[in-house]
Amino acid sequence: MRTAVAAGVDLCLANPGTTEMPLVAALDSVRGVRAVLGVFEGVCTGAADGYARMTGRPALTLLHLGPGFANGIANLHNARRAQTPVVNLIGDHTTWHLGADAPLTSDIESLARPVSSWVHTAKSARSLPSDLASAVRASLGPPGGVASLIVPQDCQWEAADGPAAPASAPGWGTPDEAAIAAASTALRGAAPAALLLGGRALCERGLRAAAGIANASGCRVLHETFPARLERGGDLPSFERLPYFPEQAIEVLAPLHQLVLAGARDPVSFFGYRDVPSRLAPEAAQVLELADPETDLLQALEALAERLGAPAEAPVADRDRVAAPTGELGVGALGQAVAALQPEGAIVMDEAATSGLAYAAFAAAAPRHTMLSLTGGAIGQGLPCAVGAALACPDRKVIAFQADGSGLYTVQSLWTMAREGLDVVAVICANRAYRILQVELGRAGIAEPGRQALALTDLAHPTIDWVALAQGFGVPGRRVESADALVEAFGRALAEPGPQLIEAVISA
Amino acid sequence: MRTAVAAGVDLCLANPGTTEMPLVAALDSVRGVRAVLGVFEGVCTGAADGYARMTGRPALTLLHLGPGFANGIANLHNARRAQTPVVNLIGDHTTWHLGADAPLTSDIESLARPVSSWVHTAKSARSLPSDLASAVRASLGPPGGVASLIVPQDCQWEAADGPAAPASAPGWGTPDEAAIAAASTALRGAAPAALLLGGRALCERGLRAAAGIANASGCRVLHETFPARLERGGDLPSFERLPYFPEQAIEVLAPLHQLVLAGARDPVSFFGYRDVPSRLAPEAAQVLELADPETDLLQALEALAERLGAPAEAPVADRDRVAAPTGELGVGALGQAVAALQPEGAIVMDEAATSGLAYAAFAAAAPRHTMLSLTGGAIGQGLPCAVGAALACPDRKVIAFQADGSGLYTVQSLWTMAREGLDVVAVICANRAYRILQVELGRAGIAEPGRQALALTDLAHPTIDWVALAQGFGVPGRRVESADALVEAFGRALAEPGPQLIEAVISA
Repeated sequence: MRTAVAAGVDLCLANPGTTEMPLVAALDSVRGVRAVLGVFEGVCTGAADGYARMTGRPALTLLHLGPGFANGIANLHNARRAQTPVVNLIGDHTTWHLGADAPLTSDIESLARPVSSWVHTAKSARSLPSDLASAVRASLGPPGGVASLIVPQDCQWEAADGPAAPASAPGWGTPDEAAIAAASTALRGAAPAALLLGGRALCERGLRAAAGIANASGCRVLHETFPARLERGGDLPSFERLPYFPEQAIEVLAPLHQLVLAGARDPVSFFGYRDVPSRLAPEAAQVLELADPETDLLQALEALAERLGAPAEAPVADRDRVAAPTGELGVGALGQAVAALQPEGAIVMDEAATSGLAYAAFAAAAPRHTMLSLTGGAIGQGLPCAVGAALACPDRKVIAFQADGSGLYTVQSLWTMAREGLDVVAVICANRAYRILQVELGRAGIAEPGRQALALTDLAHPTIDWVALAQGFGVPGRRVESADALVEAFGRALAEPGPQLIEAVISA
Repeated sequence: MRTAVAAGVDLCLANPGTTEMPLVAALDSVRGVRAVLGVFEGVCTGAADGYARMTGRPALTLLHLGPGFANGIANLHNARRAQTPVVNLIGDHTTWHLGADAPLTSDIESLARPVSSWVHTAKSARSLPSDLASAVRASLGPPGGVASLIVPQDCQWEAADGPAAPASAPGWGTPDEAAIAAASTALRGAAPAALLLGGRALCERGLRAAAGIANASGCRVLHETFPARLERGGDLPSFERLPYFPEQAIEVLAPLHQLVLAGARDPVSFFGYRDVPSRLAPEAAQVLELADPETDLLQALEALAERLGAPAEAPVADRDRVAAPTGELGVGALGQAVAALQPEGAIVMDEAATSGLAYAAFAAAAPRHTMLSLTGGAIGQGLPCAVGAALACPDRKVIAFQADGSGLYTVQSLWTMAREGLDVVAVICANRAYRILQVELGRAGIAEPGRQALALTDLAHPTIDWVALAQGFGVPGRRVESADALVEAFGRALAEPGPQLIEAVISA
């Protein structure tokens, strides 16, 4: 634990069991690591992701052998796609007990590898401090990633060497002049060109540099569909989001002859559809990478802007904030209400899925805020990630803009919000369906789904009472069924400290 | 799906996504496979386990790529330990899209292997029927196990060959005469001897044979600590359970010179503790296996009874059912109340953990019932397994005797109970703590846990309102705080059809 503190780690998101008791005790023997309990492991891993997205520093998770870890895999998958630094501490049986194949024995490494960029099983207590220092370093990348350290229980209870010094900071690589020159040529050429932003490019520095690049070169600027973290609103430049459905993305990219990737990957379809290619950019387009994942992307963007002769500060047009909606509570009014009321400095965790489609268009004109999104498609990230963001930024209001179906996967997050008094307003978009699957049934050519198929996309029989669920976990909740009621309830909830939940029942 | 029906599969526990849409549509194109939605994958896998424990036949699960599957791993770990047949259908990206490394791409086989005795990725639509027939056959063993079939989406939507015939039934092996003779010699010898029952031995035939063996040989009979399924009560013979804590189990086994295993493994400690051996039987004791896991255990037990000259029907002593308790609601009164009121033919899913400790002593005198228990230590099995048992046996009352901490992992099960109108009474043992961890802190030598350690075992701040959670998921609930109130509420709940929840707040 002293090694963790020395490496700048100050939070442990825990759902421990018997094999982690010595590590649990260690949390009190050292000052500086705050322990926060999640009553389901997906809460812990998703919160670690949210915390690190906001701080840039990994949190520890503390999880119970293979099955406990497995419950956290889905959100680690999202963290992996977000390139978030996370350090998992996973207890295991004592080394001499593993051969007994006791009931909880399993192949933890096989479970950990698909979501981890670094996996190691501790061999002794003595080397545990250096193992942890290596795990923290591995998590920091660049780029960031999930490090999983499996710790047999005897390695926890036996005497360790003194704390290990933090492993030397890896640091980001220097931009490649040739890549910058090539990007410059591509973007200022006569042929239609675009800059596609992703990852770390979506912070203030990156966005301002991109605005300068656009001004100087006349190129289009897009950003990836599901950013880990996007700064938005206020006087920040705002760019077009690459659409989710491949046909729409292909249409957006079709005119391009040049595509410069800045922290984004060469775009691919989220799923493989019949008669739709995996790659979305035109085959004939030239695709250039401004910086590889290990390179300092912001430095590269600023160098590109300078090379293009962009002004130091790009002018930003005034934007009128959208008004609060009235009347029926459709998806449009829902997005409008969130954008109209969200306070300065809010962190908006957007896992609203189909219910959030209207929001993005309004959000650019909202006050300055941070948006977090579902990076890996493993639903159930929103509420845990909001927990982590709130732990990271206690002085900022967190809005969990949350689809109802997705929210159920990790609904236990509400309890941690209540226990820690986190400043989260959860807006549950209650369309009472897996709406995206109703769309996808149609896309799969199933024009008239049968009774069972429809039932598998339906959450209305019986209706899920989110206000009762919130109450069950200790969070005050309200249900609203009109835009006016949402505006009133959302305004009130934002004015209160501590967690609040609003079930927004969506019409049609 | 026609292959599934032909192989005797009639239930699909589903939480599908985009990559499973063609399989979803197929559920309506064929009669005979009932689709049941779980709003979290752990509900589906735990229910498949419960269903197969009661029917002996595998259910299908239908899960969404690696992260969706991962959410079901913990309960598949329990199914693996229970040797339950389960067939997972896991969708994946179309074969030609996998190389694009789209956001939801992951190494599903690496995730599946630790819990599966059979893993296969379908290569084409044409071979999918025979792949499924192989999966069903693999799940049936002997012994039973988890079969995971990964199905890329194009293998779902393209044309398949006609349905495959069920793969030839494997069948149980013939008992080994030498093993029976050796067991007979061991048990009727003068040295202290015991028969340890587990697995399939714990059905009526096995128990009656064991009673005959005990009568004829004078041996002790024990059963494993966490049986997948135990028949109990009524006029069934009842045997001593091997204790959970290793020191107690070692004490029980210490006098033995001979230990004959019948469906149980050579007992090992659940966890590795300092100065406690992994193996629990005395080192000097001779341990014999009556039948290997592939052999017909019941035939072996009956052959052993016959060889020992046991009477065909062992006499069973009359047992007085315990009276309903009154007064304070401690762990004793809780177990007494369940045992006093449970109806003839109940299925009791016991994941009550420390709150269930008193129950077993009362349950032998209850009317005939089936007990299911947590086989793999991956908590959160109880409510899903109750779902599966109720789907398997609609004419029997299911009692989910459930610890509160464990119940939270898969609390979403309540919604499936409500949707399907399942006849489950959930008795939530609300001690508002991870009580076992408070015990384990002490066992780990942490005499005075610090503030953070205590907080990680505490579920009382804030209190979880289980009646509200039940309401949230559509299940009627009541809270009781005395033995009298529990008896009244439990009696009423048992008399009602459909799901009911009782939050039993445990004093001290």
